[in-house]
Amino acid sequence: MNTVGQTETRFETIATPDNPFVFLSGESLDHVEIAYEAYGELNGDASNAILLFHAFSGSQHAAGYNPSVEGCPFWTQECEEGWWNLFIGPGKALDTDKYFIICANYVGGCYGSTGPATVNPLTEKPYGSSFPHITVRDLVESQTRLLDRLGIDQLLAVVGPSTGGLSCVSFATNYPERVRLVIPIATGTRTTVLNRIILLEQILAIENDPQFCAGEYYKTGAPETGLSLARMISHKTFVHLNAIERRANKDVVQPGDRFSWYQAHDHVESYMLHQGKKFTDRFDANTYLRICELWSRHNPVIEGGAVDPTDLFSRSREAGHQYLVFSIDEDYCFYPEEQAALVAQLKEADVPHLFLTVHSEKGHDSFLLEPDLYTPHIQVMLENASR
Amino acid sequence: MNTVGQTETRFETIATPDNPFVFLSGESLDHVEIAYEAYGELNGDASNAILLFHAFSGSQHAAGYNPSVEGCPFWTQECEEGWWNLFIGPGKALDTDKYFIICANYVGGCYGSTGPATVNPLTEKPYGSSFPHITVRDLVESQTRLLDRLGIDQLLAVVGPSTGGLSCVSFATNYPERVRLVIPIATGTRTTVLNRIILLEQILAIENDPQFCAGEYYKTGAPETGLSLARMISHKTFVHLNAIERRANKDVVQPGDRFSWYQAHDHVESYMLHQGKKFTDRFDANTYLRICELWSRHNPVIEGGAVDPTDLFSRSREAGHQYLVFSIDEDYCFYPEEQAALVAQLKEADVPHLFLTVHSEKGHDSFLLEPDLYTPHIQVMLENASR
Repeated sequence: MNTVGQTETRFETIATPDNPFVFLSGESLDHVEIAYEAYGELNGDASNAILLFHAFSGSQHAAGYNPSVEGCPFWTQECEEGWWNLFIGPGKALDTDKYFIICANYVGGCYGSTGPATVNPLTEKPYGSSFPHITVRDLVESQTRLLDRLGIDQLLAVVGPSTGGLSCVSFATNYPERVRLVIPIATGTRTTVLNRIILLEQILAIENDPQFCAGEYYKTGAPETGLSLARMISHKTFVHLNAIERRANKDVVQPGDRFSWYQAHDHVESYMLHQGKKFTDRFDANTYLRICELWSRHNPVIEGGAVDPTDLFSRSREAGHQYLVFSIDEDYCFYPEEQAALVAQLKEADVPHLFLTVHSEKGHDSFLLEPDLYTPHIQVMLENASR
Repeated sequence: MNTVGQTETRFETIATPDNPFVFLSGESLDHVEIAYEAYGELNGDASNAILLFHAFSGSQHAAGYNPSVEGCPFWTQECEEGWWNLFIGPGKALDTDKYFIICANYVGGCYGSTGPATVNPLTEKPYGSSFPHITVRDLVESQTRLLDRLGIDQLLAVVGPSTGGLSCVSFATNYPERVRLVIPIATGTRTTVLNRIILLEQILAIENDPQFCAGEYYKTGAPETGLSLARMISHKTFVHLNAIERRANKDVVQPGDRFSWYQAHDHVESYMLHQGKKFTDRFDANTYLRICELWSRHNPVIEGGAVDPTDLFSRSREAGHQYLVFSIDEDYCFYPEEQAALVAQLKEADVPHLFLTVHSEKGHDSFLLEPDLYTPHIQVMLENASR
């Protein structure tokens, strides 16, 4: 058996009226819950914990099988399998026989953590557009509070693929004493112009949907056409274009009700429409917008209160961090140039690191699908850091 | 003086009830007018004519200055300068002292040729969504009818940058006896998966706008937010991303009325919103959709009634064509691979050609902005073909 089996999402309260959560924007919340899952056993001295950050549309459910999350209307069948099942379990990259692996839903998320769809106890209505704007730094801060509640002072490692990698690096540089090994995968540092433009397109796709109603749509119905288009815009960056063409041949669904005017004329169009449409059942548009914004505006230097990247990463050097950085050769979401830029900053600040490029036909999604390309290096680095 | 001066758009009727225009789709129109401009003088034996095809959002007004086009509501200040002014005029790439240069608005266009915004004489309402679906082949066919009216049997050259290049190659392979020299610039052949996806995003951006009303918006107001988003989605492929960042620093306009929820937070966002917004005044969404579709579905082999590319281009070989093909090294609209694919087909069919890559920091837009990179080769090829 190398699977984690059935799992359960747990909840931890990280903010109360006595101890509110203050966002980088200055906004604050008196009630914040974080939804998380954990796999494996925490050892006696709490030294074998790994914190994994999920990607944009991911959840706390990274491994095993989870049929439902209490009070979560966005938990569809698609969410039931852990998104990193191929990497977490006995003998896998994150070995549950050795390590205690934690994955938490982002603050502002829609899979159980307090977010825009959560009912605001003061108004008894969903927060909607009044939910604070979040930054990567806020997300990291909320998860350090979770670690405090779990009694974990120092992590063995932080791991973050895709947008999760932004948090992984932010954690290491803002709480350097709380981690030893840092594993950013197919991620970036300062957000590129291309990504900022693509994120703006997605924001407008949602905003332009009349159902959006400036974020107050929970009673009237979600902005499905806008969210669907936003997902399509991003989807093409996740999956290699050749793979889209291959997949499209076996995945043809004519759009029905929601797309009245435009009829798909080929497999690729039909595949993309299907990708967009099915996403709308499992994600909240307000959360989507918060994460677009978080990513688009991300600046690790400013959010970290540093003067420049060298200042930022000198914290990692002083704390004795090791970095393991992965690029994917044909990644259209976080281009290999972005990891190269991160590594140049590590070099400049004299931080020990290994940097590998995996060669894949799958594009950005390789980090979900091809454990063989990553597992040996992750295992060895964790083993060495455990000693 | 090396400018063309003030110009005038002329109109030619190419279809009447006795001689309807039948589209490749089988649909037909009894009344079709084509708006065109011409520069230079046609010589006595009509052997010095060049037909230039405009790009996606271009017009017949390629050179000089034209303050208005009769009955055209989309003719804004931005349209007044000829889009290829740097390439057309005395001593320029297309030398008006030597050649007679014709440029016509696409059938289905919005700058004077019969299109979706034209009033259908049968219903006395704009065609709107009832306007036929157009293909590159239809567009070429309509322009051969224009050449017939102008008394031009054989062109010295066809020239087509960007999407205009699809028509340029289609003209050469479907009417091989009517041209001698073929100049496709920064264009493609079969539309790529990436472009089909990006075009679908644009189609949906427009369709999702509630103002679109399935194309019947001429009385109620155009789908401006949708068209604006569509333009933004395409704009990032026209202009090099570094150039967008440079331009953005001096082009900051906060969106006002039309974008209520989202406030631009940086120069790039503001620049993109401005690009989208200003476009909505000068273009018709129904025409935009027709051209998206034309490009997305383009298949030169099928439209040309050939069995394969070699069959198609053997027509060029037999007619004695010369091709001059240009690539732009960092073109994100028509990637260099696409011109390489076209050239591979020319080689396979044994068609004489020259193939050059220009190196530019401007991306796809180089074809509008950097005449020095193209002019000498175009001049020599035209000179040789004139002999």
